[in-house]
Amino acid sequence: MGEELYYHVDGNLVPASEATVSVDDRGFRYGDAAFETLRAYGGTVFAWDAHLERLERTCESLSLEHGLTAADLRSRIDETLAANGLADAYVRLSITRGVQPGKLTPQPDVEPTVVVYVKPLPRGGLAGEPVWDEPATVETVETRRVPDEAIPAAAKTHNYLNGILARAELGADVDEALMCDLEGHIAEGATSNLWFVRDGEIYTPTTDGPVLPGITRQIVLDLARDAGLTVHEGLYELVAVRDADEAFLTNRTWELRPVATLDGCEIGGGPVTERLSRRYDERVERTCYE
Amino acid sequence: MGEELYYHVDGNLVPASEATVSVDDRGFRYGDAAFETLRAYGGTVFAWDAHLERLERTCESLSLEHGLTAADLRSRIDETLAANGLADAYVRLSITRGVQPGKLTPQPDVEPTVVVYVKPLPRGGLAGEPVWDEPATVETVETRRVPDEAIPAAAKTHNYLNGILARAELGADVDEALMCDLEGHIAEGATSNLWFVRDGEIYTPTTDGPVLPGITRQIVLDLARDAGLTVHEGLYELVAVRDADEAFLTNRTWELRPVATLDGCEIGGGPVTERLSRRYDERVERTCYE
Repeated sequence: MGEELYYHVDGNLVPASEATVSVDDRGFRYGDAAFETLRAYGGTVFAWDAHLERLERTCESLSLEHGLTAADLRSRIDETLAANGLADAYVRLSITRGVQPGKLTPQPDVEPTVVVYVKPLPRGGLAGEPVWDEPATVETVETRRVPDEAIPAAAKTHNYLNGILARAELGADVDEALMCDLEGHIAEGATSNLWFVRDGEIYTPTTDGPVLPGITRQIVLDLARDAGLTVHEGLYELVAVRDADEAFLTNRTWELRPVATLDGCEIGGGPVTERLSRRYDERVERTCYE
Repeated sequence: MGEELYYHVDGNLVPASEATVSVDDRGFRYGDAAFETLRAYGGTVFAWDAHLERLERTCESLSLEHGLTAADLRSRIDETLAANGLADAYVRLSITRGVQPGKLTPQPDVEPTVVVYVKPLPRGGLAGEPVWDEPATVETVETRRVPDEAIPAAAKTHNYLNGILARAELGADVDEALMCDLEGHIAEGATSNLWFVRDGEIYTPTTDGPVLPGITRQIVLDLARDAGLTVHEGLYELVAVRDADEAFLTNRTWELRPVATLDGCEIGGGPVTERLSRRYDERVERTCYE
Protein backbone atom coordinates (compact mmCIF):
# COMPACT_ATOMS: atom_id res chain seq x y z
CA MET A 1 0.00 0.00 0.00
CA GLY A 2 3.06 2.26 0.17
CA GLU A 3 2.51 2.99 -3.51
CA GLU A 4 -1.07 4.10 -3.12
CA LEU A 5 -1.82 7.65 -4.15
CA TYR A 6 -3.40 10.16 -1.82
CA TYR A 7 -6.21 12.40 -3.01
CA HIS A 8 -7.50 15.51 -1.29
CA VAL A 9 -11.22 15.45 -0.51
CA ASP A 10 -12.96 18.30 1.30
CA GLY A 11 -9.83 19.37 3.13
CA ASN A 12 -8.44 15.95 3.96
CA LEU A 13 -5.73 13.85 2.40
CA VAL A 14 -7.13 10.34 1.94
CA PRO A 15 -5.87 7.20 0.23
CA ALA A 16 -7.34 7.12 -3.28
CA SER A 17 -9.11 3.83 -2.52
CA GLU A 18 -10.98 5.53 0.32
CA ALA A 19 -11.68 8.81 -1.46
CA THR A 20 -15.44 9.09 -1.83
CA VAL A 21 -18.31 11.53 -2.23
CA SER A 22 -21.89 11.21 -1.08
CA VAL A 23 -24.27 9.64 -3.58
CA ASP A 24 -26.40 12.73 -2.89
CA ASP A 25 -23.60 15.03 -4.04
CA ARG A 26 -24.83 16.97 -7.05
CA GLY A 27 -21.53 16.21 -8.75
CA PHE A 28 -22.62 12.58 -8.79
CA ARG A 29 -26.37 12.94 -9.29
CA TYR A 30 -26.17 15.49 -12.09
CA GLY A 31 -22.53 16.08 -13.04
CA ASP A 32 -23.12 19.50 -11.45
CA ALA A 33 -19.45 20.36 -11.04
CA ALA A 34 -16.55 22.29 -12.54
CA PHE A 35 -13.08 20.90 -13.07
CA GLU A 36 -9.63 21.65 -14.39
CA THR A 37 -6.96 19.28 -15.62
CA LEU A 38 -3.57 20.67 -14.65
CA ARG A 39 0.01 19.59 -14.91
CA ALA A 40 2.78 20.01 -12.38
CA TYR A 41 6.33 20.17 -13.70
CA GLY A 42 9.19 20.03 -11.20
CA GLY A 43 6.74 20.73 -8.38
CA THR A 44 5.24 23.81 -10.05
CA VAL A 45 1.67 23.92 -11.33
CA PHE A 46 2.00 25.18 -14.90
CA ALA A 47 -0.18 28.12 -15.97
CA TRP A 48 -2.03 28.17 -12.65
CA ASP A 49 -3.47 31.65 -13.19
CA ALA A 50 -5.00 30.66 -16.52
CA HIS A 51 -6.56 27.54 -14.98
CA LEU A 52 -7.91 29.51 -12.07
CA GLU A 53 -9.46 32.06 -14.40
CA ARG A 54 -11.16 29.40 -16.52
CA LEU A 55 -12.37 27.58 -13.40
CA GLU A 56 -13.98 30.80 -12.20
CA ARG A 57 -15.60 31.33 -15.59
CA THR A 58 -16.98 27.79 -15.48
CA CYS A 59 -18.35 28.33 -11.98
CA GLU A 60 -19.90 31.62 -13.05
CA SER A 61 -21.65 30.01 -15.96
CA LEU A 62 -23.00 27.36 -13.57
CA SER A 63 -23.96 30.02 -10.96
CA LEU A 64 -21.79 27.99 -8.58
CA GLU A 65 -20.43 30.30 -5.89
CA HIS A 66 -18.01 28.02 -4.12
CA GLY A 67 -16.61 30.71 -1.81
CA LEU A 68 -13.06 29.30 -1.83
CA THR A 69 -10.02 31.49 -2.33
CA ALA A 70 -7.41 30.91 -5.00
CA ALA A 71 -4.82 30.43 -2.26
CA ASP A 72 -6.95 27.77 -0.59
CA LEU A 73 -7.40 25.85 -3.83
CA ARG A 74 -3.72 26.10 -4.64
CA SER A 75 -2.65 24.92 -1.20
CA ARG A 76 -4.87 21.84 -1.54
CA ILE A 77 -3.08 21.00 -4.77
CA ASP A 78 0.36 21.68 -3.30
CA GLU A 79 -0.44 19.57 -0.23
CA THR A 80 -1.57 16.70 -2.42
CA LEU A 81 1.57 16.82 -4.54
CA ALA A 82 3.72 16.95 -1.40
CA ALA A 83 1.88 14.10 0.31
CA ASN A 84 2.55 11.92 -2.73
CA GLY A 85 6.11 13.10 -3.17
CA LEU A 86 5.24 14.09 -6.73
CA ALA A 87 7.01 16.84 -8.68
CA ASP A 88 5.87 15.83 -12.17
CA ALA A 89 2.22 15.00 -12.16
CA TYR A 90 -1.24 15.09 -13.63
CA VAL A 91 -3.59 17.05 -11.38
CA ARG A 92 -7.36 17.25 -11.55
CA LEU A 93 -9.23 19.77 -9.44
CA SER A 94 -13.00 19.30 -9.17
CA ILE A 95 -15.48 21.58 -7.40
CA THR A 96 -19.07 20.39 -7.11
CA ARG A 97 -22.19 22.14 -5.83
CA GLY A 98 -22.17 19.65 -2.96
CA VAL A 99 -25.24 18.14 -1.34
CA GLN A 100 -28.39 20.24 -1.51
CA PRO A 101 -31.88 19.31 -0.41
CA GLY A 102 -34.14 17.53 -2.84
CA LYS A 103 -34.64 19.62 -5.92
CA LEU A 104 -32.85 19.99 -9.25
CA THR A 105 -32.98 23.79 -8.98
CA PRO A 106 -29.61 24.90 -7.58
CA GLN A 107 -29.67 26.73 -4.26
CA PRO A 108 -27.44 29.79 -3.75
CA ASP A 109 -25.96 28.50 -0.49
CA VAL A 110 -23.24 26.11 -1.56
CA GLU A 111 -21.10 23.84 0.56
CA PRO A 112 -18.85 22.72 -2.25
CA THR A 113 -17.18 19.36 -2.51
CA VAL A 114 -13.55 19.84 -3.52
CA VAL A 115 -11.49 16.94 -4.85
CA VAL A 116 -7.85 16.98 -5.93
CA TYR A 117 -6.67 13.95 -7.89
CA VAL A 118 -3.03 13.36 -8.82
CA LYS A 119 -1.03 10.77 -10.66
CA PRO A 120 2.60 10.65 -11.71
CA LEU A 121 3.66 11.80 -15.17
CA PRO A 122 7.10 11.90 -16.77
CA ARG A 123 9.25 15.02 -16.56
CA GLY A 124 8.33 17.69 -19.11
CA GLY A 125 10.37 20.51 -20.60
CA LEU A 126 13.51 20.16 -22.70
CA ALA A 127 14.74 16.97 -21.04
CA GLY A 128 11.24 15.52 -20.92
CA GLU A 129 9.42 13.00 -23.00
CA PRO A 130 5.82 12.99 -24.19
CA VAL A 131 3.22 11.07 -22.20
CA TRP A 132 2.01 9.54 -25.48
CA ASP A 133 3.82 6.75 -27.27
CA GLU A 134 3.02 7.64 -30.86
CA PRO A 135 1.40 10.41 -32.88
CA ALA A 136 -2.37 10.20 -32.62
CA THR A 137 -4.72 8.28 -34.83
CA VAL A 138 -7.88 10.32 -35.18
CA GLU A 139 -11.32 9.52 -36.56
CA THR A 140 -14.27 11.78 -37.17
CA VAL A 141 -17.47 10.70 -35.44
CA GLU A 142 -21.21 11.16 -35.87
CA THR A 143 -21.67 12.65 -32.38
CA ARG A 144 -21.85 16.43 -32.69
CA ARG A 145 -20.40 18.81 -30.14
CA VAL A 146 -23.04 20.17 -27.72
CA PRO A 147 -23.90 23.69 -28.92
CA ASP A 148 -23.23 26.73 -26.79
CA GLU A 149 -26.95 27.49 -26.53
CA ALA A 150 -27.47 24.26 -24.58
CA ILE A 151 -24.35 24.19 -22.38
CA PRO A 152 -21.65 26.88 -22.64
CA ALA A 153 -18.70 25.35 -24.49
CA ALA A 154 -16.26 27.34 -22.38
CA ALA A 155 -17.46 25.58 -19.22
CA LYS A 156 -15.38 22.56 -18.23
CA THR A 157 -17.79 20.39 -16.28
CA HIS A 158 -18.49 16.87 -15.10
CA ASN A 159 -21.07 16.59 -17.90
CA TYR A 160 -18.70 14.71 -20.16
CA LEU A 161 -20.99 12.25 -21.92
CA ASN A 162 -20.74 14.11 -25.21
CA GLY A 163 -17.03 13.26 -25.38
CA ILE A 164 -17.61 9.73 -24.10
CA LEU A 165 -20.21 9.05 -26.80
CA ALA A 166 -17.73 10.37 -29.35
CA ARG A 167 -14.96 8.11 -28.04
CA ALA A 168 -17.34 5.14 -27.92
CA GLU A 169 -17.73 5.40 -31.70
CA LEU A 170 -14.04 4.81 -32.33
CA GLY A 171 -12.48 1.64 -33.60
CA ALA A 172 -9.95 -0.13 -31.40
CA ASP A 173 -6.55 1.56 -31.18
CA VAL A 174 -7.89 4.91 -32.35
CA ASP A 175 -6.69 7.64 -30.00
CA GLU A 176 -9.04 10.55 -30.46
CA ALA A 177 -12.51 11.34 -31.77
CA LEU A 178 -12.86 14.52 -33.83
CA MET A 179 -16.27 16.14 -33.37
CA CYS A 180 -17.97 18.63 -35.66
CA ASP A 181 -20.50 21.26 -34.72
CA LEU A 182 -24.13 20.89 -35.83
CA GLU A 183 -23.37 22.64 -39.14
CA GLY A 184 -20.50 20.27 -39.92
CA HIS A 185 -17.52 22.49 -39.17
CA ILE A 186 -14.74 20.80 -37.27
CA ALA A 187 -14.87 21.65 -33.57
CA GLU A 188 -12.51 19.68 -31.35
CA GLY A 189 -11.44 16.28 -30.08
CA ALA A 190 -13.13 14.67 -27.10
CA THR A 191 -10.28 15.87 -24.86
CA SER A 192 -8.16 18.00 -27.18
CA ASN A 193 -8.05 21.01 -29.49
CA LEU A 194 -7.19 20.43 -33.15
CA TRP A 195 -4.68 22.33 -35.27
CA PHE A 196 -3.52 22.05 -38.84
CA VAL A 197 -0.80 23.62 -40.95
CA ARG A 198 -0.96 24.60 -44.60
CA ASP A 199 1.72 26.42 -46.56
CA GLY A 200 3.44 27.32 -43.29
CA GLU A 201 0.37 28.94 -41.75
CA ILE A 202 -1.51 27.61 -38.76
CA TYR A 203 -5.25 27.00 -38.42
CA THR A 204 -7.42 26.08 -35.46
CA PRO A 205 -11.22 26.17 -34.96
CA THR A 206 -12.45 29.40 -33.38
CA THR A 207 -13.81 29.38 -29.84
CA ASP A 208 -16.75 31.34 -31.24
CA GLY A 209 -17.95 27.84 -32.09
CA PRO A 210 -18.53 25.03 -29.56
CA VAL A 211 -14.85 24.64 -28.71
CA LEU A 212 -13.31 24.58 -25.26
CA PRO A 213 -10.80 27.43 -24.85
CA GLY A 214 -7.92 25.11 -23.96
CA ILE A 215 -5.16 26.55 -21.79
CA THR A 216 -2.61 24.73 -23.92
CA ARG A 217 -4.41 26.08 -26.98
CA GLN A 218 -3.94 29.65 -25.74
CA ILE A 219 -0.26 29.07 -24.95
CA VAL A 220 0.36 27.60 -28.40
CA LEU A 221 -1.45 30.54 -30.02
CA ASP A 222 0.83 32.91 -28.11
CA LEU A 223 3.97 30.91 -28.90
CA ALA A 224 3.09 30.76 -32.61
CA ARG A 225 2.51 34.50 -32.82
CA ASP A 226 5.70 35.18 -30.87
CA ALA A 227 7.53 33.05 -33.43
CA GLY A 228 6.16 35.25 -36.22
CA LEU A 229 3.89 32.54 -37.58
CA THR A 230 0.52 33.41 -39.10
CA VAL A 231 -2.33 31.88 -37.12
CA HIS A 232 -5.95 31.68 -38.22
CA GLU A 233 -8.89 30.95 -35.92
CA GLY A 234 -12.00 30.22 -37.94
CA LEU A 235 -14.64 27.78 -39.14
CA TYR A 236 -13.15 24.94 -41.15
CA GLU A 237 -14.38 21.96 -43.09
CA LEU A 238 -13.03 18.48 -42.55
CA VAL A 239 -11.45 18.42 -45.98
CA ALA A 240 -9.14 21.27 -45.01
CA VAL A 241 -7.64 19.08 -42.28
CA ARG A 242 -7.38 16.06 -44.54
CA ASP A 243 -5.47 18.12 -47.11
CA ALA A 244 -3.20 19.78 -44.54
CA ASP A 245 0.59 19.54 -44.52
CA GLU A 246 0.66 18.89 -40.79
CA ALA A 247 -1.86 18.47 -38.00
CA PHE A 248 -1.60 18.16 -34.25
CA LEU A 249 -3.71 18.04 -31.10
CA THR A 250 -3.17 19.92 -27.88
CA ASN A 251 -4.27 19.35 -24.33
CA ARG A 252 -2.77 19.71 -20.89
CA THR A 253 -1.26 16.26 -20.59
CA TRP A 254 -0.47 15.53 -24.24
CA GLU A 255 0.99 19.04 -24.78
CA LEU A 256 1.41 18.95 -28.60
CA ARG A 257 0.70 15.58 -30.19
CA PRO A 258 1.04 15.15 -33.96
CA VAL A 259 -1.87 13.61 -35.84
CA ALA A 260 -0.60 10.49 -37.60
CA THR A 261 -3.82 9.81 -39.49
CA LEU A 262 -7.29 11.26 -39.83
CA ASP A 263 -9.89 8.71 -40.90
CA GLY A 264 -7.04 6.58 -42.15
CA CYS A 265 -5.44 9.32 -44.29
CA GLU A 266 -1.88 10.09 -43.34
CA ILE A 267 -1.12 13.63 -42.24
CA GLY A 268 1.62 13.59 -39.62
CA GLY A 269 3.51 16.33 -37.87
CA GLY A 270 6.32 18.28 -39.55
CA PRO A 271 8.57 21.29 -39.14
CA VAL A 272 5.92 23.68 -37.79
CA THR A 273 4.61 21.18 -35.25
CA GLU A 274 8.16 20.40 -34.16
CA ARG A 275 9.05 24.06 -33.86
CA LEU A 276 6.02 24.78 -31.69
CA SER A 277 6.64 21.68 -29.57
CA ARG A 278 10.18 22.83 -28.96
CA ARG A 279 8.99 26.30 -27.96
CA TYR A 280 6.42 24.76 -25.66
CA ASP A 281 9.09 22.63 -23.99
CA GLU A 282 11.31 25.71 -23.62
CA ARG A 283 8.45 27.56 -21.99
CA VAL A 284 7.87 24.72 -19.53
CA GLU A 285 11.59 24.43 -18.85
CA ARG A 286 11.98 28.14 -18.20
CA THR A 287 8.83 28.48 -16.09
CA CYS A 288 9.07 25.35 -14.00
CA TYR A 289 12.55 23.83 -13.97
CA GLU A 290 14.94 26.82 -13.84
CA MET B 1 -31.03 8.36 13.73
CA GLY B 2 -34.05 6.02 13.67
CA GLU B 3 -35.50 8.29 10.99
CA GLU B 4 -32.52 8.10 8.70
CA LEU B 5 -33.17 6.60 5.30
CA TYR B 6 -31.28 3.64 3.96
CA TYR B 7 -29.97 3.60 0.41
CA HIS B 8 -28.74 0.59 -1.52
CA VAL B 9 -25.20 0.92 -2.85
CA ASP B 10 -23.51 -1.89 -4.74
CA GLY B 11 -25.50 -4.60 -3.08
CA ASN B 12 -25.52 -3.20 0.44
CA LEU B 13 -28.10 -1.29 2.43
CA VAL B 14 -26.35 1.68 3.99
CA PRO B 15 -27.54 4.73 5.93
CA ALA B 16 -27.96 7.60 3.46
CA SER B 17 -25.35 9.66 5.32
CA GLU B 18 -22.78 6.92 4.70
CA ALA B 19 -23.78 6.14 1.11
CA THR B 20 -20.84 7.05 -1.07
CA VAL B 21 -19.13 6.33 -4.38
CA SER B 22 -15.47 6.54 -5.28
CA VAL B 23 -14.30 9.90 -6.61
CA ASP B 24 -12.87 7.82 -9.46
CA ASP B 25 -16.30 6.46 -10.33
CA ARG B 26 -17.16 7.56 -13.85
CA GLY B 27 -20.59 8.53 -12.61
CA PHE B 28 -18.88 11.24 -10.58
CA ARG B 29 -16.02 12.20 -12.90
CA TYR B 30 -18.11 12.41 -16.07
CA GLY B 31 -21.77 11.88 -15.23
CA ASP B 32 -21.27 8.59 -17.10
CA ALA B 33 -24.39 6.90 -15.74
CA ALA B 34 -27.99 6.02 -16.50
CA PHE B 35 -30.88 6.54 -14.13
CA GLU B 36 -34.60 6.21 -13.68
CA THR B 37 -36.94 8.07 -11.36
CA LEU B 38 -39.66 5.70 -10.21
CA ARG B 39 -42.57 5.80 -7.87
CA ALA B 40 -43.79 3.11 -5.52
CA TYR B 41 -47.48 3.13 -4.61
CA GLY B 42 -48.65 0.84 -1.83
CA GLY B 43 -45.38 -1.10 -2.05
CA THR B 44 -45.62 -1.65 -5.81
CA VAL B 45 -43.22 -0.01 -8.26
CA PHE B 46 -45.50 1.59 -10.85
CA ALA B 47 -44.82 0.87 -14.54
CA TRP B 48 -41.67 -1.10 -13.72
CA ASP B 49 -41.50 -2.74 -17.16
CA ALA B 50 -41.57 0.63 -18.91
CA HIS B 51 -38.81 1.99 -16.66
CA LEU B 52 -36.72 -1.09 -17.20
CA GLU B 53 -37.09 -0.82 -20.95
CA ARG B 54 -36.08 2.84 -20.99
CA LEU B 55 -33.14 2.13 -18.67
CA GLU B 56 -31.93 -0.50 -21.09
CA ARG B 57 -32.30 1.90 -24.02
CA THR B 58 -30.28 4.50 -22.11
CA CYS B 59 -27.56 1.97 -21.33
CA GLU B 60 -27.50 0.85 -24.96
CA SER B 61 -27.03 4.39 -26.17
CA LEU B 62 -24.13 4.78 -23.70
CA SER B 63 -22.68 1.36 -24.69
CA LEU B 64 -22.92 0.54 -20.99
CA GLU B 65 -23.29 -3.20 -20.56
CA HIS B 66 -23.98 -3.46 -16.86
CA GLY B 67 -24.66 -7.20 -16.88
CA LEU B 68 -27.38 -7.06 -14.21
CA THR B 69 -30.68 -8.85 -14.57
CA ALA B 70 -34.04 -7.15 -14.29
CA ALA B 71 -34.82 -9.35 -11.28
CA ASP B 72 -31.62 -8.27 -9.55
CA LEU B 73 -32.37 -4.58 -10.10
CA ARG B 74 -35.92 -5.01 -8.94
CA SER B 75 -34.91 -6.87 -5.81
CA ARG B 76 -32.52 -4.07 -4.86
CA ILE B 77 -35.39 -1.63 -5.09
CA ASP B 78 -37.75 -3.88 -3.14
CA GLU B 79 -35.13 -4.46 -0.44
CA THR B 80 -34.59 -0.74 -0.09
CA LEU B 81 -38.29 -0.03 0.23
CA ALA B 82 -38.63 -2.81 2.80
CA ALA B 83 -35.62 -1.68 4.83
CA ASN B 84 -37.15 1.77 5.10
CA GLY B 85 -40.64 0.49 5.75
CA LEU B 86 -41.84 2.53 2.78
CA ALA B 87 -44.89 1.68 0.68
CA ASP B 88 -45.39 5.07 -0.99
CA ALA B 89 -42.08 6.43 -2.13
CA TYR B 90 -39.89 8.20 -4.62
CA VAL B 91 -37.25 5.82 -5.96
CA ARG B 92 -34.18 6.64 -8.01
CA LEU B 93 -32.15 3.88 -9.59
CA SER B 94 -28.71 4.85 -10.92
CA ILE B 95 -26.26 2.63 -12.80
CA THR B 96 -22.82 4.02 -13.54
CA ARG B 97 -19.96 2.65 -15.61
CA GLY B 98 -18.03 2.28 -12.35
CA VAL B 99 -14.31 2.82 -11.92
CA GLN B 100 -12.20 2.23 -15.01
CA PRO B 101 -8.51 2.87 -15.47
CA GLY B 102 -7.35 6.31 -16.53
CA LYS B 103 -8.90 7.17 -19.87
CA LEU B 104 -12.08 8.86 -20.99
CA THR B 105 -12.69 6.15 -23.60
CA PRO B 106 -15.11 3.67 -22.05
CA GLN B 107 -13.88 0.10 -21.64
CA PRO B 108 -16.20 -2.80 -22.47
CA ASP B 109 -15.59 -4.56 -19.15
CA VAL B 110 -17.89 -2.81 -16.71
CA GLU B 111 -18.18 -3.27 -12.97
CA PRO B 112 -21.19 -1.04 -12.56
CA THR B 113 -21.99 1.03 -9.53
CA VAL B 114 -25.66 0.62 -8.64
CA VAL B 115 -27.39 3.03 -6.30
CA VAL B 116 -31.01 2.96 -5.13
CA TYR B 117 -32.28 6.12 -3.44
CA VAL B 118 -35.67 6.35 -1.76
CA LYS B 119 -37.67 8.94 0.07
CA PRO B 120 -41.24 8.95 1.36
CA LEU B 121 -44.04 10.39 -0.75
CA PRO B 122 -47.77 10.68 0.01
CA ARG B 123 -50.18 7.95 -1.06
CA GLY B 124 -51.21 8.17 -4.71
CA GLY B 125 -54.30 6.88 -6.50
CA LEU B 126 -57.88 7.87 -5.84
CA ALA B 127 -57.42 8.57 -2.11
CA GLY B 128 -54.07 10.25 -2.72
CA GLU B 129 -53.00 13.83 -2.87
CA PRO B 130 -50.48 15.47 -5.19
CA VAL B 131 -46.88 15.95 -4.07
CA TRP B 132 -47.10 19.57 -5.28
CA ASP B 133 -48.89 22.29 -3.35
CA GLU B 134 -50.13 24.40 -6.24
CA PRO B 135 -50.35 24.34 -10.02
CA ALA B 136 -46.96 25.12 -11.56
CA THR B 137 -45.62 28.53 -12.46
CA VAL B 138 -43.55 28.09 -15.63
CA GLU B 139 -41.12 30.38 -17.42
CA THR B 140 -39.42 29.96 -20.76
CA VAL B 141 -35.63 30.17 -20.65
CA GLU B 142 -32.77 30.99 -22.99
CA THR B 143 -31.04 27.65 -22.44
CA ARG B 144 -31.89 25.36 -25.35
CA ARG B 145 -32.41 21.65 -25.02
CA VAL B 146 -29.31 19.60 -26.00
CA PRO B 147 -29.95 18.29 -29.52
CA ASP B 148 -30.18 14.61 -30.24
CA GLU B 149 -27.07 14.73 -32.43
CA ALA B 150 -24.94 15.63 -29.38
CA ILE B 151 -26.54 13.42 -26.69
CA PRO B 152 -29.56 11.22 -27.44
CA ALA B 153 -32.60 12.89 -25.89
CA ALA B 154 -34.10 9.50 -25.03
CA ALA B 155 -31.17 8.71 -22.74
CA LYS B 156 -31.79 9.57 -19.08
CA THR B 157 -28.32 10.19 -17.70
CA HIS B 158 -26.37 11.89 -14.91
CA ASN B 159 -25.47 14.66 -17.41
CA TYR B 160 -28.14 16.97 -16.12
CA LEU B 161 -26.50 20.39 -16.41
CA ASN B 162 -28.72 21.40 -19.31
CA GLY B 163 -31.75 21.26 -17.02
CA ILE B 164 -29.85 22.85 -14.14
CA LEU B 165 -28.80 25.80 -16.30
CA ALA B 166 -32.41 26.15 -17.38
CA ARG B 167 -33.63 26.13 -13.76
CA ALA B 168 -30.89 28.58 -12.74
CA GLU B 169 -32.42 31.16 -15.09
CA LEU B 170 -35.72 31.16 -13.21
CA GLY B 171 -36.96 33.85 -10.88
CA ALA B 172 -37.66 32.92 -7.27
CA ASP B 173 -40.79 30.84 -6.72
CA VAL B 174 -40.98 29.72 -10.33
CA ASP B 175 -41.47 25.98 -10.46
CA GLU B 176 -40.37 24.87 -13.89
CA ALA B 177 -38.22 26.04 -16.81
CA LEU B 178 -39.61 25.44 -20.28
CA MET B 179 -36.87 24.79 -22.83
CA CYS B 180 -37.10 25.13 -26.59
CA ASP B 181 -35.09 23.26 -29.19
CA LEU B 182 -32.47 25.12 -31.24
CA GLU B 183 -35.09 26.10 -33.82
CA GLY B 184 -37.35 27.60 -31.15
CA HIS B 185 -40.02 24.91 -30.92
CA ILE B 186 -41.08 24.07 -27.40
CA ALA B 187 -39.40 20.92 -26.16
CA GLU B 188 -39.88 20.15 -22.47
CA GLY B 189 -39.42 21.29 -18.90
CA ALA B 190 -36.20 20.64 -17.02
CA THR B 191 -37.80 17.62 -15.33
CA SER B 192 -41.19 17.35 -17.04
CA ASN B 193 -43.07 16.95 -20.29
CA LEU B 194 -45.42 19.73 -21.37
CA TRP B 195 -49.00 19.39 -22.62
CA PHE B 196 -51.64 21.85 -23.71
CA VAL B 197 -55.32 21.65 -24.61
CA ARG B 198 -57.14 23.61 -27.25
CA ASP B 199 -60.78 23.17 -28.27
CA GLY B 200 -60.86 19.90 -26.37
CA GLU B 201 -57.89 18.39 -28.22
CA ILE B 202 -54.55 17.59 -26.62
CA TYR B 203 -51.09 18.60 -27.83
CA THR B 204 -47.60 17.61 -26.67
CA PRO B 205 -44.17 18.05 -28.30
CA THR B 206 -43.09 15.05 -30.35
CA THR B 207 -40.23 12.87 -29.17
CA ASP B 208 -38.85 13.19 -32.69
CA GLY B 209 -37.43 16.40 -31.24
CA PRO B 210 -35.11 16.64 -28.21
CA VAL B 211 -37.73 15.47 -25.74
CA LEU B 212 -37.37 12.73 -23.16
CA PRO B 213 -39.94 9.98 -23.74
CA GLY B 214 -41.41 10.25 -20.27
CA ILE B 215 -43.05 7.15 -18.83
CA THR B 216 -45.84 9.30 -17.42
CA ARG B 217 -46.08 10.97 -20.83
CA GLN B 218 -46.69 7.58 -22.47
CA ILE B 219 -49.29 6.58 -19.90
CA VAL B 220 -51.15 9.88 -20.35
CA LEU B 221 -51.04 9.44 -24.14
CA ASP B 222 -52.60 6.00 -23.73
CA LEU B 223 -55.20 7.19 -21.23
CA ALA B 224 -56.19 10.10 -23.45
CA ARG B 225 -56.63 7.86 -26.49
CA ASP B 226 -58.57 5.31 -24.43
CA ALA B 227 -60.85 8.14 -23.38
CA GLY B 228 -61.53 8.93 -27.02
CA LEU B 229 -59.67 12.25 -26.90
CA THR B 230 -57.74 13.48 -29.92
CA VAL B 231 -54.03 13.75 -29.19
CA HIS B 232 -51.43 15.47 -31.36
CA GLU B 233 -47.67 15.00 -31.06
CA GLY B 234 -45.84 17.63 -33.09
CA LEU B 235 -43.63 20.70 -33.26
CA TYR B 236 -45.25 23.69 -31.59
CA GLU B 237 -44.46 27.34 -31.06
CA LEU B 238 -44.57 28.98 -27.67
CA VAL B 239 -47.55 31.11 -28.67
CA ALA B 240 -49.68 28.00 -29.07
CA VAL B 241 -49.15 27.19 -25.39
CA ARG B 242 -49.80 30.76 -24.28
CA ASP B 243 -53.11 30.75 -26.17
CA ALA B 244 -54.16 27.32 -24.91
CA ASP B 245 -57.30 26.61 -22.91
CA GLU B 246 -55.42 24.40 -20.47
CA ALA B 247 -51.84 23.28 -19.93
CA PHE B 248 -50.18 20.78 -17.65
CA LEU B 249 -46.86 19.11 -16.94
CA THR B 250 -46.18 15.44 -16.35
CA ASN B 251 -43.42 13.57 -14.64
CA ARG B 252 -43.12 10.56 -12.41
CA THR B 253 -43.48 12.33 -9.06
CA TRP B 254 -45.76 15.22 -10.06
CA GLU B 255 -48.03 12.91 -12.11
CA LEU B 256 -50.20 15.58 -13.84
CA ARG B 257 -49.61 19.13 -12.61
CA PRO B 258 -51.64 22.01 -14.09
CA VAL B 259 -49.70 25.01 -15.39
CA ALA B 260 -50.95 28.07 -13.48
CA THR B 261 -48.97 30.59 -15.53
CA LEU B 262 -46.50 30.63 -18.41
CA ASP B 263 -44.25 33.69 -18.41
CA GLY B 264 -46.79 35.36 -16.19
CA CYS B 265 -49.79 34.68 -18.47
CA GLU B 266 -52.52 32.68 -16.79
CA ILE B 267 -53.43 29.35 -18.36
CA GLY B 268 -54.49 26.91 -15.66
CA GLY B 269 -55.85 23.40 -15.80
CA GLY B 270 -59.45 22.65 -16.69
CA PRO B 271 -61.85 19.84 -17.50
CA VAL B 272 -59.50 17.88 -19.76
CA THR B 273 -56.59 18.08 -17.31
CA GLU B 274 -58.91 17.01 -14.50
CA ARG B 275 -60.35 14.16 -16.49
CA LEU B 276 -56.89 12.82 -17.35
CA SER B 277 -55.70 13.26 -13.76
CA ARG B 278 -58.67 11.26 -12.56
CA ARG B 279 -57.96 8.50 -15.08
CA TYR B 280 -54.32 8.48 -14.01
CA ASP B 281 -55.32 8.12 -10.36
CA GLU B 282 -57.69 5.31 -11.29
CA ARG B 283 -54.90 3.56 -13.12
CA VAL B 284 -52.58 3.86 -10.11
CA GLU B 285 -55.34 2.74 -7.76
CA ARG B 286 -56.18 -0.30 -9.86
CA THR B 287 -52.59 -1.32 -10.52
CA CYS B 288 -51.09 -0.75 -7.09
CA TYR B 289 -53.68 -0.53 -4.35
CA GLU B 290 -56.31 -3.15 -5.24
